[in-house]
Amino acid sequence: MTFKLDPRLEADTREVIDIDLSTVRLMNDQRFPWLILVPRFADLVEVTDLSHSDRYRLMDNVACCCSVLQSVFPDTHKINVGALGNMVSQLHVHVIARRTTDAAWPNPVWGVGKSEPYEANALGVVQGRLRAAFSEEQ
Amino acid sequence: MTFKLDPRLEADTREVIDIDLSTVRLMNDQRFPWLILVPRFADLVEVTDLSHSDRYRLMDNVACCCSVLQSVFPDTHKINVGALGNMVSQLHVHVIARRTTDAAWPNPVWGVGKSEPYEANALGVVQGRLRAAFSEEQ
Repeated sequence: MTFKLDPRLEADTREVIDIDLSTVRLMNDQRFPWLILVPRFADLVEVTDLSHSDRYRLMDNVACCCSVLQSVFPDTHKINVGALGNMVSQLHVHVIARRTTDAAWPNPVWGVGKSEPYEANALGVVQGRLRAAFSEEQ
Repeated sequence: MTFKLDPRLEADTREVIDIDLSTVRLMNDQRFPWLILVPRFADLVEVTDLSHSDRYRLMDNVACCCSVLQSVFPDTHKINVGALGNMVSQLHVHVIARRTTDAAWPNPVWGVGKSEPYEANALGVVQGRLRAAFSEEQ
């Protein structure tokens, strides 16, 4: 089977970059700097579906996303990392930059309020800054 | 500095076992089979505060908790893994066995309803089964 991004993840997010094991996408919600990593293998559900070495690569990819968010959004107070998959079973990891002033703090972001899509210009700016930061990290 | 478990984590959880890098505790909420891993180092907040090799060990510890939960609770439908830390900054990772019939499904468990502490006997049974499963995993 070939890897194919789940259509619900695709609809909720916008392209950023592919790093090593994972496709990195930006959640289309300007309330939170919120990345989603999707390992590019078919039929993954749990982290334990990855081989040992690929789990380590995923950990590296997550750490890379943490550093990128902290660099692009210096007002980040805390990074939230989560692999839930209750709604979309395709293995994906959320990496979210939290601020103490954001719409959900100190609660988790999932299911809070209504997402606010980026305007086209703002989206392009954020995508550009993220890609530049990933290029520096890699 | 020596490692000391945050008093709020200590109050909300009960002992299970120490594995490799992490202290594993059971959330004292019988609604969800819910483990918390706390790497036994002082002053950790983000996953990226760990060294590269310790991040891999944490990934192994998380995978171990996933396998243990799936073995002890065979009706597990999905494992949720999360490192949030908005309330308690000491680095800790939640590993939660979710069932489609549980009190929060398909939403995340954090902040849902009121926790239901185990009765002493039931707690002892679950702790015993978890410890036996960890011994088999290691």
